[in-house]
Amino acid sequence: MSDNPRPRRRHDPDRREKIILAALDVIAQLGVAGTTHRRVAEAAEVPLGSMTYHFASLEELIIEAFTRLDRSLSTYYWDMLQAAKTRDEACEAVVDIICGNRWTDSYMTQLFELYAFAARRPEMRHILSNWMARSRQAMELHFPPHVARALDAVIEGVTIHNMATKDHLPQDEVRAMVRAVAGLG
Amino acid sequence: MSDNPRPRRRHDPDRREKIILAALDVIAQLGVAGTTHRRVAEAAEVPLGSMTYHFASLEELIIEAFTRLDRSLSTYYWDMLQAAKTRDEACEAVVDIICGNRWTDSYMTQLFELYAFAARRPEMRHILSNWMARSRQAMELHFPPHVARALDAVIEGVTIHNMATKDHLPQDEVRAMVRAVAGLG
Repeated sequence: MSDNPRPRRRHDPDRREKIILAALDVIAQLGVAGTTHRRVAEAAEVPLGSMTYHFASLEELIIEAFTRLDRSLSTYYWDMLQAAKTRDEACEAVVDIICGNRWTDSYMTQLFELYAFAARRPEMRHILSNWMARSRQAMELHFPPHVARALDAVIEGVTIHNMATKDHLPQDEVRAMVRAVAGLG
Repeated sequence: MSDNPRPRRRHDPDRREKIILAALDVIAQLGVAGTTHRRVAEAAEVPLGSMTYHFASLEELIIEAFTRLDRSLSTYYWDMLQAAKTRDEACEAVVDIICGNRWTDSYMTQLFELYAFAARRPEMRHILSNWMARSRQAMELHFPPHVARALDAVIEGVTIHNMATKDHLPQDEVRAMVRAVAGLG
């Protein structure tokens, strides 16, 4: 949770934020391998020189962008699960997460880029494991840890398979699966 | 890379195969974005000119490589599930698939590259949907279609999460999850 106060720029206080969001766009389009200071600066419409002011290195920017991606997702999980009052409602929240419209192609591309980045570089896996820990904590508002881990894996697997095929897993099948894993089948 | 013609190898019946396997290595290392004819030829130790003899385009080679990746995995599923005689054994086969040592970092990287490739290019999703159909058919030797789909998603989700964290989902938790999804909880 590092929404640290950052040095505000007089001219464009949102510039750092713009750069991070632009980096995610560039990663979606061109992959980590195609992400450069120049391309991100163009996408963010900021001067190339401002990149190094805000980020010590391209790697730092990429890590920051992926961390932002993960945090937006775990915050979403958290919001959904906090709103649930019972285990039944919590199951329904998980169904809604899976079947919702959050999983755009661009978003999925960013996730896969992150996974490939972490698979290649074990020292970067803390980005993933921190994210998973936060997601699971949201599930643990309602479920024991082993169920929380299992549900998190279900969300992962089903959303990927839904991306891969036109015929999404029907909502009632998702519900049956979630409830079975939650021990409410 | 040598520009020696090495005529002896012109008739190398395994050359096409070597190129495909080398392409997967290069994809694991450098991603689809970094995969070029030249790099694959170097990795395969074949003359650059032989690449265009075997593959009309780099895209064709990449598709062939990903298809090979998927096929090796669905064949593995098929072998494991065919060996099972009962639903209990089939569940155990799924547990073995998840907890086995097939999911190397390099393998996972190739999968994520494939997913990112397909997420960016919907016209390539048939590679994934064909693969998923074959994997599910293996599960359908023992389970109804909706359970087969669910188990396939469980394999996907848990293997990814196992890659992401040092503390893998313990085998007994995987078993509990698989059996719950299979309706044998």
